[in-house]
Amino acid sequence: MIPPDQDFAARVRSSFDRQQAMELLGAQMTEVQAGMTEIVLPFREALTQQHGFVHAGIITAIADSACGYAALSLMPPDAVVLTIEFKVNLLNPAAGERFVARGRVVKPGRTIMVCTGEVVAEREDGAQQTVALIQATMMVVRDRPAVSD
Amino acid sequence: MIPPDQDFAARVRSSFDRQQAMELLGAQMTEVQAGMTEIVLPFREALTQQHGFVHAGIITAIADSACGYAALSLMPPDAVVLTIEFKVNLLNPAAGERFVARGRVVKPGRTIMVCTGEVVAEREDGAQQTVALIQATMMVVRDRPAVSD
Amino acid sequence: MIPPDQDFAARVRSSFDRQQAMELLGAQMTEVQAGMTEIVLPFREALTQQHGFVHAGIITAIADSACGYAALSLMPPDAVVLTIEFKVNLLNPAAGERFVARGRVVKPGRTIMVCTGEVVAEREDGAQQTVALIQATMMVVRDRPAVSD
Amino acid sequence: MIPPDQDFAARVRSSFDRQQAMELLGAQMTEVQAGMTEIVLPFREALTQQHGFVHAGIITAIADSACGYAALSLMPPDAVVLTIEFKVNLLNPAAGERFVARGRVVKPGRTIMVCTGEVVAEREDGAQQTVALIQATMMVVRDRPAVSD
Repeated sequence: MIPPDQDFAARVRSSFDRQQAMELLGAQMTEVQAGMTEIVLPFREALTQQHGFVHAGIITAIADSACGYAALSLMPPDAVVLTIEFKVNLLNPAAGERFVARGRVVKPGRTIMVCTGEVVAEREDGAQQTVALIQATMMVVRDRPAVSD
Repeated sequence: MIPPDQDFAARVRSSFDRQQAMELLGAQMTEVQAGMTEIVLPFREALTQQHGFVHAGIITAIADSACGYAALSLMPPDAVVLTIEFKVNLLNPAAGERFVARGRVVKPGRTIMVCTGEVVAEREDGAQQTVALIQATMMVVRDRPAVSD
Repeated sequence: MIPPDQDFAARVRSSFDRQQAMELLGAQMTEVQAGMTEIVLPFREALTQQHGFVHAGIITAIADSACGYAALSLMPPDAVVLTIEFKVNLLNPAAGERFVARGRVVKPGRTIMVCTGEVVAEREDGAQQTVALIQATMMVVRDRPAVSD
Repeated sequence: MIPPDQDFAARVRSSFDRQQAMELLGAQMTEVQAGMTEIVLPFREALTQQHGFVHAGIITAIADSACGYAALSLMPPDAVVLTIEFKVNLLNPAAGERFVARGRVVKPGRTIMVCTGEVVAEREDGAQQTVALIQATMMVVRDRPAVSD
């Protein structure tokens, strides 16, 4: 996948830094490639649901951002990315020291980009377990003022 | 829909109160009926993505909790609820003063409950707009220690 | 919802008649409104899976067509409709004399239309049961030669 | 993935042979492994939608069966498989000489199995293109009479 914008990584990181929600959660973007990004979220009790695991919506937040920015990395500099929809399967309880979301583009269309990704929990002992699987549809928005991610 | 547990509302609210993620986001449970719940989230800049709208993952978090607790309201007292998966369509940018998530059970099975719901943005001028639609699958878990919502 | 093409019903029905797959299944379009269509499929053993119920993919075929044509009914005459994705929950076994799929547009966008729908089984005794729920994303395609439904 | 039933392949193939819908479509099961199956569907005009491509619902039918039988291959001999839900992204028009659906289990649970899969179009010149991506949830049903796949 050849990105039309050679500065895609700087553009993606700059956009991520404007996501105040990621700061609230404590998530960081750890990797940007053409068509792929990685976001890491350390565990905190403030992120949990009633059973002490990280809330499915928060796991989804980092999975959605990882997919959206994978899509944005392949867009021209004047385009913004908009999440049309996603589907998330929760495979295992989100328990662990940190959570690594990876999103990648599987179909880079002119208007629509389809992405898949997963969130992997990393335990203290080094064990890894996939906790969520995402299949998402992103839109390339060129001709409108800034819209929702 | 007849709940097997007459104390379902107290049980649902008590579980919601243990969701530290909802506290982090600033969300409150405003209604619990048999097979339906409502969660309200006031706008804050800390919840936004790069364009100033509330992040899709955070919108999903309240939609998922509203659906999960709608399902829990119809479960026996010894059961816990687990989100198997959800699908969310983002219909409009999440702009507004507050966001109201409603989830309801459309198929209350013995093991599987299917829910639908939506998140509506309420603007300052009283206008309302649906920003997200969710279709979710919840599991009734009886024989295991507490697991992820 | 105001259709930009007053002849939408004839255009939708003419397109449906070109779906050879619907003829193979034995499905008929029974209603077309602005933003809503209905397709009926009589039961036949040739449509069943291993347990004697209609196959989930075939239930999906009529649900997808009902949603796609609901979207097409709101498009300008020079546009074609493309299914980007759908999510289907199977609520009950597809047993019955006939199956009625209804699709409706919930968000008629310029480029993207989001639809929901359901398939209802009608039994011999007049009883009805929802067997499937669909949430689908359709694309308005103007500037390309004909593409997939 | 270790199947609890050593005769899983014969059991899967025997169940597939009872799917009259697959016969109607002209689909054949070409491979069964523990946690993975493959189904092939040759192109026929009778399978097409209004633009001459294979209907999305029919593409979904083989993708669903491939995933369902991948799940069944890992179940004990007395269990049947039930499709709870699936999400399908259509990546490219379903044009080609034949369509190969592959489904595999990514999370083999006691009650729930999560599968992913894809449908690849094979063109006359040997070119291949992915036309659909599926993420599906299957249920292991032990204690009920046969239910819908």
